[in-house]
Amino acid sequence: MGFLFTRKLTIEWGHCDPAGIVFNPRFFEFFDWSTARLMEVALDLGKVDMRKAYGIVGIPLVDTRANFMRPSRYGEEIEIVSNVTTVGRSSFEIDHQLFNQAELAVTAHEKRVWAIRDGETGRLKAQAIPEDVVRKLNGA
Amino acid sequence: MGFLFTRKLTIEWGHCDPAGIVFNPRFFEFFDWSTARLMEVALDLGKVDMRKAYGIVGIPLVDTRANFMRPSRYGEEIEIVSNVTTVGRSSFEIDHQLFNQAELAVTAHEKRVWAIRDGETGRLKAQAIPEDVVRKLNGA
Amino acid sequence: MGFLFTRKLTIEWGHCDPAGIVFNPRFFEFFDWSTARLMEVALDLGKVDMRKAYGIVGIPLVDTRANFMRPSRYGEEIEIVSNVTTVGRSSFEIDHQLFNQAELAVTAHEKRVWAIRDGETGRLKAQAIPEDVVRKLNGA
Amino acid sequence: MGFLFTRKLTIEWGHCDPAGIVFNPRFFEFFDWSTARLMEVALDLGKVDMRKAYGIVGIPLVDTRANFMRPSRYGEEIEIVSNVTTVGRSSFEIDHQLFNQAELAVTAHEKRVWAIRDGETGRLKAQAIPEDVVRKLNGA
Repeated sequence: MGFLFTRKLTIEWGHCDPAGIVFNPRFFEFFDWSTARLMEVALDLGKVDMRKAYGIVGIPLVDTRANFMRPSRYGEEIEIVSNVTTVGRSSFEIDHQLFNQAELAVTAHEKRVWAIRDGETGRLKAQAIPEDVVRKLNGA
Repeated sequence: MGFLFTRKLTIEWGHCDPAGIVFNPRFFEFFDWSTARLMEVALDLGKVDMRKAYGIVGIPLVDTRANFMRPSRYGEEIEIVSNVTTVGRSSFEIDHQLFNQAELAVTAHEKRVWAIRDGETGRLKAQAIPEDVVRKLNGA
Repeated sequence: MGFLFTRKLTIEWGHCDPAGIVFNPRFFEFFDWSTARLMEVALDLGKVDMRKAYGIVGIPLVDTRANFMRPSRYGEEIEIVSNVTTVGRSSFEIDHQLFNQAELAVTAHEKRVWAIRDGETGRLKAQAIPEDVVRKLNGA
Repeated sequence: MGFLFTRKLTIEWGHCDPAGIVFNPRFFEFFDWSTARLMEVALDLGKVDMRKAYGIVGIPLVDTRANFMRPSRYGEEIEIVSNVTTVGRSSFEIDHQLFNQAELAVTAHEKRVWAIRDGETGRLKAQAIPEDVVRKLNGA
């Protein structure tokens, strides 16, 4: 069982579209923020320090999927439960469950890579995740 | 083979994050916009008129997934090719392919429902897609 | 002295641009959210209920200005102090001060109108602010 | 008379809020994008190249104000006319006029600085604008 992180948020006016429900890209913002906080808490390091400490550029998303089960509206309080499910050699996976008043409203899955900038090409490339990070993400 | 729609966009400064690449929720904005335009062109109706003409609230996303193969950066021109792949009774599916300088950079899949507001509960609910819409989305 | 409202926020990764600082439109999101919350607390009503209770469409911004004194970065905790400064016949004004680690980082000013939808034209139009709202915004 | 730049945009669904009109922070995105394009065209350089060519971190906004005269809605075509009004020693000013169907809908004013990163403190600081940039922004 990997690291678990829970966060509460309130749906803001500007998160919603003319149908009065959260504009779907906003959910991906919420999940991105949850993952960032999860990493900070798991590694006990701010993201900026994480980048310095490990020499990475970031943890870009390579794969995601989401299932929207019920809409969320302005002023509603939501809770996002995020959970590391798999830690691989240079990538890891996180599940997010978004609850709205105790009902499961959105589920999402992310796969991210531990990425450095290639010195020659300047492109991002995956890199082996350090052992202490693997251990912490595994919640051990 | 369903309706096909292509759109060009330029990556703006504010689409990018501190790693200098497009912040992933922005891609879901791009796809949402492509779907909206695709619908307009397929049905030959603006979205506002579409809502009036068919009595729907919108076409909310129920399912999506995306695969990010290469990052996109400020100032790059991208092209999004969107394609209706399946039209069901009250839902339909769209594939998006995002090209950056002829390289496939992101692929995504969406499932959306044809939604009205339930008179009693006030909640969104799926409704059978009208025949003319089915035919047009099928590109017939 | 009008109604006063204070809110804390954390700068998220996706709020920042490739220069590593908050992308300026995000500050206007923060201020919009602060105003929405201020109204809720002042009137002791959610925004949705506020719209129902008073028959308004919203409180659209007609005028704003902002002064950016120091940049804010990912992970920083900010505090926004919002203060109703003037309540007119159909409009009101709010000042926002955004502090980052006790330093004043951004100041902003908003003028908003109490807006209903004109039955004939369908356009938004200003309407006299009800007396109880005036009194509450004045912090009396 | 400084450099002048015009750009057309279509209002997207996700730009709008539950009142069905553009969520005001989106206008600041539009203006930011117009300024970025204006600079590119004026200097005949992409923003990334601009940063390399001149050693700057960016052109952060220090001051802005906007006046919202009429709302814009989903699907409407807008035109933004941007105009350099003043070029100072280390800052410059731009006016934006946003037209919606030939009606002036929003006006905005920006003051931005030519910013480098201070080698010692790591903070952004203003720097004299190079002569060729001054000349180009002046439209000479």
